[in-house]
Amino acid sequence: MTDTALERGRAITKTFNPTLEKTLAERYDDDVPDFAETLVEFAYGRIYAREGLDMKTRQLITVGALTALGGQTAPQLEINIEHAHANGASKTEIFETIMQMAIYGGMPAAINGMNVAKQFFDKQDQPDQN
Amino acid sequence: MTDTALERGRAITKTFNPTLEKTLAERYDDDVPDFAETLVEFAYGRIYAREGLDMKTRQLITVGALTALGGQTAPQLEINIEHAHANGASKTEIFETIMQMAIYGGMPAAINGMNVAKQFFDKQDQPDQN
Amino acid sequence: MTDTALERGRAITKTFNPTLEKTLAERYDDDVPDFAETLVEFAYGRIYAREGLDMKTRQLITVGALTALGGQTAPQLEINIEHAHANGASKTEIFETIMQMAIYGGMPAAINGMNVAKQFFDKQDQPDQN
Amino acid sequence: MTDTALERGRAITKTFNPTLEKTLAERYDDDVPDFAETLVEFAYGRIYAREGLDMKTRQLITVGALTALGGQTAPQLEINIEHAHANGASKTEIFETIMQMAIYGGMPAAINGMNVAKQFFDKQDQPDQN
Amino acid sequence: MTDTALERGRAITKTFNPTLEKTLAERYDDDVPDFAETLVEFAYGRIYAREGLDMKTRQLITVGALTALGGQTAPQLEINIEHAHANGASKTEIFETIMQMAIYGGMPAAINGMNVAKQFFDKQDQPDQN
Amino acid sequence: MTDTALERGRAITKTFNPTLEKTLAERYDDDVPDFAETLVEFAYGRIYAREGLDMKTRQLITVGALTALGGQTAPQLEINIEHAHANGASKTEIFETIMQMAIYGGMPAAINGMNVAKQFFDKQDQPDQN
Repeated sequence: MTDTALERGRAITKTFNPTLEKTLAERYDDDVPDFAETLVEFAYGRIYAREGLDMKTRQLITVGALTALGGQTAPQLEINIEHAHANGASKTEIFETIMQMAIYGGMPAAINGMNVAKQFFDKQDQPDQN
Repeated sequence: MTDTALERGRAITKTFNPTLEKTLAERYDDDVPDFAETLVEFAYGRIYAREGLDMKTRQLITVGALTALGGQTAPQLEINIEHAHANGASKTEIFETIMQMAIYGGMPAAINGMNVAKQFFDKQDQPDQN
Repeated sequence: MTDTALERGRAITKTFNPTLEKTLAERYDDDVPDFAETLVEFAYGRIYAREGLDMKTRQLITVGALTALGGQTAPQLEINIEHAHANGASKTEIFETIMQMAIYGGMPAAINGMNVAKQFFDKQDQPDQN
Repeated sequence: MTDTALERGRAITKTFNPTLEKTLAERYDDDVPDFAETLVEFAYGRIYAREGLDMKTRQLITVGALTALGGQTAPQLEINIEHAHANGASKTEIFETIMQMAIYGGMPAAINGMNVAKQFFDKQDQPDQN
Repeated sequence: MTDTALERGRAITKTFNPTLEKTLAERYDDDVPDFAETLVEFAYGRIYAREGLDMKTRQLITVGALTALGGQTAPQLEINIEHAHANGASKTEIFETIMQMAIYGGMPAAINGMNVAKQFFDKQDQPDQN
Repeated sequence: MTDTALERGRAITKTFNPTLEKTLAERYDDDVPDFAETLVEFAYGRIYAREGLDMKTRQLITVGALTALGGQTAPQLEINIEHAHANGASKTEIFETIMQMAIYGGMPAAINGMNVAKQFFDKQDQPDQN
C-alpha cells in the first residue's frame, strides 16, 4: 500500500458508491471545507481499506452498529444498507443483522432499523415509483 | 424446527459456552426467577438460532455493536469476544471489527473496545497466569 | 403458570392491545419470520407477564425509560403511552413520568417525550379528526 | 406550596436521605459552587416534589431509567435503588423493574443493572461486613 | 447575586430569547404545571447564569454536546445554534464545533448536526421564504 | 497548508502532548496496525488542525461532549481535561463546562464528569503522591 489513505478511500468508494465524495462535497464543503475528503480518507481509506476482514462482513457490522446506536443515525443506516447490499449482502442477511440487535440495543432499536430496511427494499422493488 | 425456542437456545449455547445457562441461573435466578431461561430462549433460541446468517458473522456483528454502544457493556463485550473467537473469528477479525466502530460510535468507543479485546487475548496468551 | 411464555404473552396483550401480534406480523414477518411471535413471547410472555410488579407501574416505568433513552424510540414511546393509559395510568401520571426524566436523560429528552405525549392525548381528545 | 423549590427539595430529601445535600456540598461545592443546592432544588424541589405521582412509583421509574441508560450511571443507580427501597419498593419490585429494561435498553443494560442491585442488597443483608 | 435563580434565569434569557419562557409555558404548562419556570430557573438561572465561563463559549459547548448526543435532540440543537449565534458565535465557529464531534460521537452524529446547522443558516439567509 | 493531514496532526499534538502518538502506537499498533497514525491524522490533523475555532474552545467543547456522552468515555475525558488545561483552560472553566452538561446529558453524567475532573486536579495538586 504505497498510496495515501485518501487515495485508498477514493479507490474503495469508487467500487460501490462512485459519487459519494462528490455528493458530500457539494452538500457540505462550503460550510465545512474538506469535509468530504476527511470522511473518504478516514472512514474508507483508514478503515474500510484495511486488510483482515472482508468488505461484506464489514458492511453488515456497520448495519448492526447503526441499528444498535439508534437515534438520529437512520439516514446513515439507509446508506449503509445500500452499501452492504452492493457488497453482496442479501436482503435476508441485512434483516437478520438488524433483528439481532434487539438483544443488545433493545426492541425499539431493532424495530426502527427494520423500518429503515423495509423502506430501502421497498424502493428497490419499485424503482419506477421513485 | 419442531423444537421450542428454549430448546434451540440450549442446543446452540452448548456448542460454544456449555455452562452459560447454569452460570447465569446460579447468579441471577434467586432474585429474578427464570432469568437464565429467558436469556437463553430469547437471545439464543429466538435470534442466534435463526437461519440466514452464519454464526461467525453474527458474533462479529455483536462485537461491533457492543463496541459502538460503549457504556457499561464492557463485560458483555468480553464474553462475546470469547464467543466470536470460539465460533472461528480470528484475533485480527475481532480487532478490525472494533476499530471500524470509530467511524460510527466515535474514537473513545473504539479505544475502549480495543482495551477489552487486548485484555481478553492477553489472558488467552498466558493461561497459567489466570 | 403451566402455559408457555408465548401463550402468556398472547393472553396479556389481548387485554389491552388485541391486534398487537397481528399488526406486527403483517408488517414484519415476511422479512423477519417469527418476529411478532418473538416480541410477544419475550417482551410480554417473559417480562410483562412476571409477577412482583403491577402492570400499571410496569407501563409507567417503560414510558420513563423510553423518554430517557430518547433517540429513535419516539414511535415506541407513543405505543407505550397508549398501553400505560389502557392499564389505568392517568394523563397526569404519564406527563409526570416524562418530566421526571429531565433529571436523568436531560432536558431535551424530557421535552421530546412531552411532545410525544401531547400528540397522543391531542388525538385522544379529538377522535373524529383522525 | 408557598415555600420555594429549594425548601421543598430539602424537605423531601430529609425524609429518606437526610445527609444528601451535605454530602454533595462537601464533595463538590469547592469546585462547583452551589452544586448541592442546585441538585436539591431542581431534582427534588422541582420534580420529586411534584404532585400527580406517588414517590414510590417515581423512584421505581428512576431505577428503570438509570438501568436503561446504562453507561456510567451505575453509582447513581445504586443511590436510587437505596431511595426506592427507603420509599417502600420491595427487593422484588426493584429487580422486576431492572429486568424489564432488557426489552428497551437491551440485555447488557439489564444484566448490569441486576449486578448493581445484587451488590446493594448483598450489603443490606450483611451490614456488619461493611 | 441577591436575586433568586428564577430571576437570574429570566434576566439572561431576556437578552437573547425574550419569549422563551412564555413560549414554553403556552406549550407545556397545562400538562406539566411550572415546566417553563423550572427550565428557566434550572438551565438558565442555575447554570448559564454562573460565572467562570463566558456565554459564547457556553453556547458552543452546548451545540457540541447536542451534536454528540445525537438522537432526538435535533430540535434543541437548532434552538441552541440560534442562541449561540445570538451570543456572538459565527457560522464558522458553529460548523467547526459540530464537525469536531465526529471524533467523539461518530461521523453520523456530526453529519446530522451539520444538516441541522445548514437548515438553520439557510433560513437565516432567506428570511422572506419563511 | 501544504503539509499532509498526518503532518499537521503530529505538529499539533507535539505542542501539548508530545508522546501521544508513540504511547498509542506502543499500546495498540501490534493488534491494530496504524491505529496511532490514524488517530493523529484524523482527530488532530483533520479536525483540531482546522481554522475557525481556537484550540482552547475546541478542548472545552470536547470536555463537554465527553461528559454528556457519559458511558465508557471516562478515560478519554481525563486525557482531554489534561489537554484543555494544557491549552489554557482554567480549572474553573473545566468544571463549569462539565456542570453545564447536567441540562443536556442529565445529572448523573454531570456528576460522573465532575468526579473525573476532581480526580485529575487532585493528582495535579499532589504530584509527589503519584
